[in-house]
Amino acid sequence: MIKEEIQKQIFQTVETVRRTNPMAGSITNTVTINFVANAQLAVGGSAAMVYLPDEGEFLAKAGGATYINVGTLFPIYEQTLPHVAKVLHETGKPWVLDPVAVGIGSLRTQLLKQFKDYKPGVIRGNASEIIALAGLWELNGGEATSRVRGVDSTDSVNAAKTAAVSLAKWTGGAVAVSGKTDLITDGKIIAYSYGGSHFMPKITGTGCSLGGVIAVYATAASPFIAALTGTAVYNLAGARAEKKVDGPGSFQVKFLDELYKASAEDIANNPFEIEEV
Amino acid sequence: MIKEEIQKQIFQTVETVRRTNPMAGSITNTVTINFVANAQLAVGGSAAMVYLPDEGEFLAKAGGATYINVGTLFPIYEQTLPHVAKVLHETGKPWVLDPVAVGIGSLRTQLLKQFKDYKPGVIRGNASEIIALAGLWELNGGEATSRVRGVDSTDSVNAAKTAAVSLAKWTGGAVAVSGKTDLITDGKIIAYSYGGSHFMPKITGTGCSLGGVIAVYATAASPFIAALTGTAVYNLAGARAEKKVDGPGSFQVKFLDELYKASAEDIANNPFEIEEV
Amino acid sequence: MIKEEIQKQIFQTVETVRRTNPMAGSITNTVTINFVANAQLAVGGSAAMVYLPDEGEFLAKAGGATYINVGTLFPIYEQTLPHVAKVLHETGKPWVLDPVAVGIGSLRTQLLKQFKDYKPGVIRGNASEIIALAGLWELNGGEATSRVRGVDSTDSVNAAKTAAVSLAKWTGGAVAVSGKTDLITDGKIIAYSYGGSHFMPKITGTGCSLGGVIAVYATAASPFIAALTGTAVYNLAGARAEKKVDGPGSFQVKFLDELYKASAEDIANNPFEIEEV
Repeated sequence: MIKEEIQKQIFQTVETVRRTNPMAGSITNTVTINFVANAQLAVGGSAAMVYLPDEGEFLAKAGGATYINVGTLFPIYEQTLPHVAKVLHETGKPWVLDPVAVGIGSLRTQLLKQFKDYKPGVIRGNASEIIALAGLWELNGGEATSRVRGVDSTDSVNAAKTAAVSLAKWTGGAVAVSGKTDLITDGKIIAYSYGGSHFMPKITGTGCSLGGVIAVYATAASPFIAALTGTAVYNLAGARAEKKVDGPGSFQVKFLDELYKASAEDIANNPFEIEEV
Repeated sequence: MIKEEIQKQIFQTVETVRRTNPMAGSITNTVTINFVANAQLAVGGSAAMVYLPDEGEFLAKAGGATYINVGTLFPIYEQTLPHVAKVLHETGKPWVLDPVAVGIGSLRTQLLKQFKDYKPGVIRGNASEIIALAGLWELNGGEATSRVRGVDSTDSVNAAKTAAVSLAKWTGGAVAVSGKTDLITDGKIIAYSYGGSHFMPKITGTGCSLGGVIAVYATAASPFIAALTGTAVYNLAGARAEKKVDGPGSFQVKFLDELYKASAEDIANNPFEIEEV
Repeated sequence: MIKEEIQKQIFQTVETVRRTNPMAGSITNTVTINFVANAQLAVGGSAAMVYLPDEGEFLAKAGGATYINVGTLFPIYEQTLPHVAKVLHETGKPWVLDPVAVGIGSLRTQLLKQFKDYKPGVIRGNASEIIALAGLWELNGGEATSRVRGVDSTDSVNAAKTAAVSLAKWTGGAVAVSGKTDLITDGKIIAYSYGGSHFMPKITGTGCSLGGVIAVYATAASPFIAALTGTAVYNLAGARAEKKVDGPGSFQVKFLDELYKASAEDIANNPFEIEEV
């Protein structure tokens, strides 16, 4: 795929979402759930969040894509998450997995292991999470011992390149590694997306809400294009918001404004580079 | 009731709440729970949220009114919600029901059916939710098959008029249908409230937080006046906030400011019309 | 300890946290969980939130301090909270307890009673909560019957002085009573911290997020200094934010900005007075 073709698809994805207001349901953590919903609305999607198994199944079938984030697990997730992931896999609906804090706790480990068979269309995480998930799934580039400290990364994006490619090859979808420069791969090519702001790690939920936004775009595009489109609008909105503020509180507010205002053309033209794997 | 009498009661409700700082406890969803609390504080109320049965009972008895929103159900709600609704009904305390996403999942359906006997003082929802709830309760204007997609309405406010009147007649309270023009009825008269902003559906929780604010006003007014007062301050604050912003992030911030600053006189004078049922 | 020595320690605490980005995990309520995390990030810490027993244990051991807030209890907390508090006590890690709404419900009462043996390094609450907790623990200054209405205080800070001192003597740590003037004591001396804003009780979570911020500082200072440092930066940021806004929505945004921008010197110089117990 040449760069111009990718940009054309990004443009079309943004426009389609704005025109059709697609629903992407979520099962996500309580810390950033409000930000996830507002970011999904800002880019033109519709949001709905649930916790129970049959409600998750309903949203999985009703929505064009689904977002699953394991940040704050509840006991009921032992039933909800495998069930919903299985439904998504069997119905061929794309879903986005955010393996927050992989390595912490037995339920989290059990759930993330189960997800290997249900092949999320997009996996989004920081470098440490991507390496740890590849390790858990026994894929190349993974490491058996997680270096995840809490929810923050202790590894650089480039250190996760092999793991990201392995994961994408396994799922047949895409992987997005968030960091200073973001890496998105479908296992065949790698896109590096530029921009963003030093304020992004100073507010909670830029990663989670990006996962939710990628799910919205995944209703209208391939996993790779959805992941790259979401990452591009985040880098664009982050850079624009940073110029208008002097603190993280104002940054979050302006960031949502810029997500809402970004044109399809500007998102498609946000700087990125492509390389073959 | 003539319009001037209604306006006088709105004025008094706003003033009483600002003077007495009444507590309205909530059992509400995790997506917008922070916005609900902040909106309740902004209009002069006091907020408290819980999940467990005996804590819900405590708040029901301690508060002047209670807000129940079924947005994100937890398993414990199977015990909490019928128990608290029963306590509210038996003690004659007003409560506000927000039947978010009625039709999705078996627990939600079971709970919303049970609420029929506990007669919420105010039911607030979008048009699709009001029609679906009337259907679930087998009242006029309801439909057996929900068109609720997720949390957004696919029906117009006017399409829900018969359902809203039926629900209000059944409960003896009021029903507020949120939309471009909002409809509030006590089963005898209908008020149409004007104002608001195109940004309101672009942030999550304008509906939920309105439910919480109506509960605050219900500590000091009849269900109909509480619902109309809440809707009026939302329409006023939305219209004022919209003029100051160019995106949904800033809109939410300024909206809370305007809720806080709105005078009782301006709220009472926010445009509305009355018709007989 | 003379005032200059205290100010020097405040200065060093703020600087150490900004330099080392320490992690303080939380088990906290869903209403203000996002604000807690963003406040912790704003002062230079790292945040992570969980609900399950083994995950709480992981965070307790991985973090430099932990924040436990009983605002919105889930059923699983019956297992999680005593287990995590025990781990913290046994490993000698500092933890901050926010006894929100003490007196409401049987599980809350049971948990808060159990915490007596696990001696939180810092207890932070409003006056009514501090008096009620001392009562529950059968210490001087406490009262058997809680006057906690919901989450707001009905008592003045000075009324809680004896209770605060008793609690600090029992735990060997510190107690922070939030109010118009804030009182912080280690059982030997009392600091009164000045500043803040009339907007602080008009947004939900200033108390909760202060608890989270104190936990961040407790990774780098004694309980007393951590509590005083957190209170000082809150009073400073509150006073600064108030000058820039005319409503509570904008206040919360600017408050986070000011938390982020406050210099160690300004925080150390925020007005406070010391008296012997």
